[in-house]
Amino acid sequence: MREILSWYGSDNPGTKANIARLLNHGTLAGTGKLVVLPVDQGFEHGPARSFAMNPPAYDPRFHFELAIESGCNAYAAPLGFLEAGASEFAGEIPLILKANNHDVLHDEKDPLSAVTGSVEAALRLGCSAIGFTIYPGSSNATKMYEQIQAIGEEAKRNGLAVVIWSYPRGSDISKAGETAIDVVAYAAQIAAQLGGHFIKVKLPTDHIEQDEARKVYEKCAVPIGTAAERVRHVVQSTFDGRRIVIFSGGAKKDSDDAVLDEARGIRDGGGFGSIIGRNSFQRKKPEALKLLRAIIGIYSGSGR
Amino acid sequence: MREILSWYGSDNPGTKANIARLLNHGTLAGTGKLVVLPVDQGFEHGPARSFAMNPPAYDPRFHFELAIESGCNAYAAPLGFLEAGASEFAGEIPLILKANNHDVLHDEKDPLSAVTGSVEAALRLGCSAIGFTIYPGSSNATKMYEQIQAIGEEAKRNGLAVVIWSYPRGSDISKAGETAIDVVAYAAQIAAQLGGHFIKVKLPTDHIEQDEARKVYEKCAVPIGTAAERVRHVVQSTFDGRRIVIFSGGAKKDSDDAVLDEARGIRDGGGFGSIIGRNSFQRKKPEALKLLRAIIGIYSGSGR
Amino acid sequence: MREILSWYGSDNPGTKANIARLLNHGTLAGTGKLVVLPVDQGFEHGPARSFAMNPPAYDPRFHFELAIESGCNAYAAPLGFLEAGASEFAGEIPLILKANNHDVLHDEKDPLSAVTGSVEAALRLGCSAIGFTIYPGSSNATKMYEQIQAIGEEAKRNGLAVVIWSYPRGSDISKAGETAIDVVAYAAQIAAQLGGHFIKVKLPTDHIEQDEARKVYEKCAVPIGTAAERVRHVVQSTFDGRRIVIFSGGAKKDSDDAVLDEARGIRDGGGFGSIIGRNSFQRKKPEALKLLRAIIGIYSGSGR
Amino acid sequence: MREILSWYGSDNPGTKANIARLLNHGTLAGTGKLVVLPVDQGFEHGPARSFAMNPPAYDPRFHFELAIESGCNAYAAPLGFLEAGASEFAGEIPLILKANNHDVLHDEKDPLSAVTGSVEAALRLGCSAIGFTIYPGSSNATKMYEQIQAIGEEAKRNGLAVVIWSYPRGSDISKAGETAIDVVAYAAQIAAQLGGHFIKVKLPTDHIEQDEARKVYEKCAVPIGTAAERVRHVVQSTFDGRRIVIFSGGAKKDSDDAVLDEARGIRDGGGFGSIIGRNSFQRKKPEALKLLRAIIGIYSGSGR
Amino acid sequence: MREILSWYGSDNPGTKANIARLLNHGTLAGTGKLVVLPVDQGFEHGPARSFAMNPPAYDPRFHFELAIESGCNAYAAPLGFLEAGASEFAGEIPLILKANNHDVLHDEKDPLSAVTGSVEAALRLGCSAIGFTIYPGSSNATKMYEQIQAIGEEAKRNGLAVVIWSYPRGSDISKAGETAIDVVAYAAQIAAQLGGHFIKVKLPTDHIEQDEARKVYEKCAVPIGTAAERVRHVVQSTFDGRRIVIFSGGAKKDSDDAVLDEARGIRDGGGFGSIIGRNSFQRKKPEALKLLRAIIGIYSGSGR
Repeated sequence: MREILSWYGSDNPGTKANIARLLNHGTLAGTGKLVVLPVDQGFEHGPARSFAMNPPAYDPRFHFELAIESGCNAYAAPLGFLEAGASEFAGEIPLILKANNHDVLHDEKDPLSAVTGSVEAALRLGCSAIGFTIYPGSSNATKMYEQIQAIGEEAKRNGLAVVIWSYPRGSDISKAGETAIDVVAYAAQIAAQLGGHFIKVKLPTDHIEQDEARKVYEKCAVPIGTAAERVRHVVQSTFDGRRIVIFSGGAKKDSDDAVLDEARGIRDGGGFGSIIGRNSFQRKKPEALKLLRAIIGIYSGSGR
Repeated sequence: MREILSWYGSDNPGTKANIARLLNHGTLAGTGKLVVLPVDQGFEHGPARSFAMNPPAYDPRFHFELAIESGCNAYAAPLGFLEAGASEFAGEIPLILKANNHDVLHDEKDPLSAVTGSVEAALRLGCSAIGFTIYPGSSNATKMYEQIQAIGEEAKRNGLAVVIWSYPRGSDISKAGETAIDVVAYAAQIAAQLGGHFIKVKLPTDHIEQDEARKVYEKCAVPIGTAAERVRHVVQSTFDGRRIVIFSGGAKKDSDDAVLDEARGIRDGGGFGSIIGRNSFQRKKPEALKLLRAIIGIYSGSGR
Repeated sequence: MREILSWYGSDNPGTKANIARLLNHGTLAGTGKLVVLPVDQGFEHGPARSFAMNPPAYDPRFHFELAIESGCNAYAAPLGFLEAGASEFAGEIPLILKANNHDVLHDEKDPLSAVTGSVEAALRLGCSAIGFTIYPGSSNATKMYEQIQAIGEEAKRNGLAVVIWSYPRGSDISKAGETAIDVVAYAAQIAAQLGGHFIKVKLPTDHIEQDEARKVYEKCAVPIGTAAERVRHVVQSTFDGRRIVIFSGGAKKDSDDAVLDEARGIRDGGGFGSIIGRNSFQRKKPEALKLLRAIIGIYSGSGR
Repeated sequence: MREILSWYGSDNPGTKANIARLLNHGTLAGTGKLVVLPVDQGFEHGPARSFAMNPPAYDPRFHFELAIESGCNAYAAPLGFLEAGASEFAGEIPLILKANNHDVLHDEKDPLSAVTGSVEAALRLGCSAIGFTIYPGSSNATKMYEQIQAIGEEAKRNGLAVVIWSYPRGSDISKAGETAIDVVAYAAQIAAQLGGHFIKVKLPTDHIEQDEARKVYEKCAVPIGTAAERVRHVVQSTFDGRRIVIFSGGAKKDSDDAVLDEARGIRDGGGFGSIIGRNSFQRKKPEALKLLRAIIGIYSGSGR
Repeated sequence: MREILSWYGSDNPGTKANIARLLNHGTLAGTGKLVVLPVDQGFEHGPARSFAMNPPAYDPRFHFELAIESGCNAYAAPLGFLEAGASEFAGEIPLILKANNHDVLHDEKDPLSAVTGSVEAALRLGCSAIGFTIYPGSSNATKMYEQIQAIGEEAKRNGLAVVIWSYPRGSDISKAGETAIDVVAYAAQIAAQLGGHFIKVKLPTDHIEQDEARKVYEKCAVPIGTAAERVRHVVQSTFDGRRIVIFSGGAKKDSDDAVLDEARGIRDGGGFGSIIGRNSFQRKKPEALKLLRAIIGIYSGSGR
């Protein structure tokens, strides 16, 4: 833990304390690993697509409880969901305010999320961190980078930690390219250079999107054949492991084994943890708890 | 009432008091239900289309009086209309400043309302809440979400409540889609995630607009056959009923029965109330009072 | 006078005093009517087109003197023209700073005026009011509405009155539509809803521009056959006469009778007065004084 | 001098003192005439095109010395050039910070200068005035007008004078139209209405660009046949001579006589002076001094 | 040294001290020459393309150490890289915060970097200077010039030095034109006029891009045949040598001789130094140190 905090020597004690708070909560407290429950799908995909398969999840309290009972390190959600429980569950789990959001009622090739939260709101709600999504590759990326520059600086001044979701997307990137190893590693690097303390990317495939990058991967024989190797490359690309990078798997998986396998790959590659949304809250609570605990077990060493 | 206020645990006492003020005024005081008179059609559709069929309604005092005498919970209007009566009727009814507006002199597929009010104006005029319209689905939605983020935060800091009108509209949404059940439920969710205390949507139809959503509605067999079922789904989509969501019917109805039937559907589905504009103020005052009182009666239990 | 001020119950004493100042100056002092001299044509059309036919009008002092000697209620001009005389004529006539302007060196279908003045400048120059032009129907209307929202709020906070010039124009409005009765009434309503104390529109024709509006005018048989009827409808559309609405005639008329006839129509329809620019300052001073005094006479009752 | 200052009655003593400082420096001190050395060509055209024909002019000190030794009233340059000499030559000549600039590495029909200076910088560097270029006729004109509104207001608040370079240019104006008499007079009027104390335009030709203007010039028989007549018309168009308007000739002339003839025309037409850039600093210093002194002689009455 | 500082007479003692700090550090301390290590390629080109050929360079500490051990004057990097070492290496080498960045996941002809740093961050991290990239020739150049105007002014107010990277690029400039002698000299002039204390350009070729410039180069016979002559012309174009201009070579060279030859050309032409990125950190540390020391030797006089 002290070693991890030493990576953040440029931050004030307030921010360091909040980084520590995120790492020191839940089952994984003190291991340097973390599992986070994020629930922004209500905004991003709509309520029915997010919650109809598990109606108790319409209630914002469901997610607080799930995150707390499962032993997650933190719970991340947009303004409304946090406002609806921050007081009732005050002090029970570190909160991350997802400060920008995007919906699918308007289609666009080059997405731009709307800033829907603020440092003021994060402080008011007792959050430990601000979360922000960037879409590298979007023609709107410059705007988002400048937004996180401003909000990140304000967050650090106020002793909050900064979590950056970095999702490549845009008119110059193919669908496969969004999870290509070169692109995901690049996205992680950008998020780190933008000053993120925690960085969240998608688990990459072995596809390589950019020709200039392919030459280097081939010439230098960068190992990217297995999930663990790709995770290792992303960790390396995030300041050689000196920034906390966690991974998401994406859409709901058919089998739990697939989800757990992903976690094993992340662990084996030196990733710092998982962020598990739809695969947890879109099932009944006992099953969701079971899955989250199994994932946490993989990182804690108690599971395989 | 205390239960309702408990949903807003993240707000300061000033905002809670204003939420209570809106719920504790008029015939429905203390029932947890509310009926609001909104009059922004002068700006949105023009004066003749709004008031020529009932000329006394050109006078801004008409609407204050109608809202007060009918026993409504609140009166909502743009800056000019409120300025024209806020002093004369000070303290007689809770006011909502409609802080953005749109006119039809310029046609556009992706609307963007102009910000025409402010928290400063709402405070100066003694309002209890700020009202703001968003158009999810518009290519300008990002801008509007950011505007309500800023104005909502300022409102909450100053002890005001926030009312969000959420009207899906834009180049990617069909005309039928504007009131489709999936889209309306989504719009209500977005407004709740944006931090609205009160949310206003249109009464949805059983049309489903988005293919991805249709799969879920069918697979999970979400009941949307009757108006009451659709209201129930929207209430569920608004934080499982932990945000106050009210409904409007839209254009002037031919028969009062149609209007009253809508109110019954809202009531039966667990909706918190109605917002009735053109169907009230576009008729002579005695008739308008009669209709409003009949609607209020439905919610109070004194009517059917 | 007290009745008129009672319409502005939401304003602070400073703003009320400035409204009163505009109404209590000149020949029409205390009548509730007003005639204003506006001179922004130098900016809007160029100096030669504005002043070559009466060269003394190139001198900014000419217009101060004309407004004072003719007994006008107020003089309205852009920053430069006011700066060039505000000190010399300090306290001799209420001033209105025209705070945005537009020129014709660049052609555009959807105009947007540049903000060229400010509340700070208006206060520094001893003005009683800020004047602002909006172009309802322009694709830039949203921007202008937001500009007047901000500048109007600042003006009211500082005890100034707000005068809105509301000129429909833009790619969706036909040339005839710019002075159509439905459009002009709508423009007046918008200006009132935006919080204008004084509203200035063009004298409308009996053309109806929008189909939706035509249905209502016909169904409700709104009388719009004569100039007086149309003025009455605009006054009604401006909060049923509870906002001060004045009229301009537009381009220089061939005969004085035409100008005076317009003033009679405004008076007979219950309009609050005229704003006379080119028809006055584009003639020699004695003739200009004669015409302005004749118009003022119509409103004062001393003329026909 | 006192008469000239009386034209600026709306300004504070600080600004009046700086206007006086510009008029009271150099050979023309106290005559009410002025000659200014402007050197922004390094930014506007590039260093080689500006200085290669006289290499000492690459050194920013060259221009300070040239302006001082020749007896100019003031020296105007962008931020960098002023920073490079303001301390060494402090107090030796009034300085004008050219606060916006444009380069020719990107071609555009509707130019927009970048704001490269500020009132804060002007105060820090001991300048007497801020200089700002507008391009009336550009589709970006609205933006530039709003920039000078803001920067001009700040300048006046801080006791600086405001100099506006008004150069018509844009997609609706022909090449000949940029120096057409109607357009130049209009540009001078706009600069005066925007609140400029000093206005700088190009010497106009007898071309008339706009049809609406031509009708007036012909009907009113405005004399525009000679350079002196055209200067007189521009002076008249600038508040009938109550704003200080100076002229530039443009590109380097082949013969000095042509330059001196221009100055005579300006003097005979009642212009307040010249702004001489390329025609001075693009020659060896002794020759540059000779020319500038000859021009100054024309205005002082010591030359012809 | 004092002579160099005398060129910056308009700056406050804080900024002068930071200019001196950059010149007084490392092997070249006190010589008036400087060699800077810049590492922003992780952001600009992606992590693998930047670091895979020398994996220790993934670690941000590698670059601090390389810059310190090689005897460089300063180390320049984006926010994230500096945050990751500024505390550990505090006071060991002057830092330059690269305050804007650009990535290659979205392709564009007219680039605009995102502002990713700030004066506040530079002060917090103990930097001596802020670094900023402009792309003259881009249609976004106006925006970048205004950004550096604002950030530069804030930097100077707070006692920081300003370093401007000036890279011509955009739809009107050919690929060859990006390093053309006329364009590079112009870019250096613009950076100086924008107030940069240190200016960084690419080593130019003898290509001339703009026709208007070619006429002058030919007529005035400006010597541009050798690298040294071209460097001399750029130095001249940067206020005749009164601003510190340094050069980069660009892509990784095949042979060290090519890199060293470039440094000799810069030295012989009177350039103030080199900025060496990829050619140093993309090799193993001993070799990187060897090359950097050889380059430094060329400037110090100890090498050839």
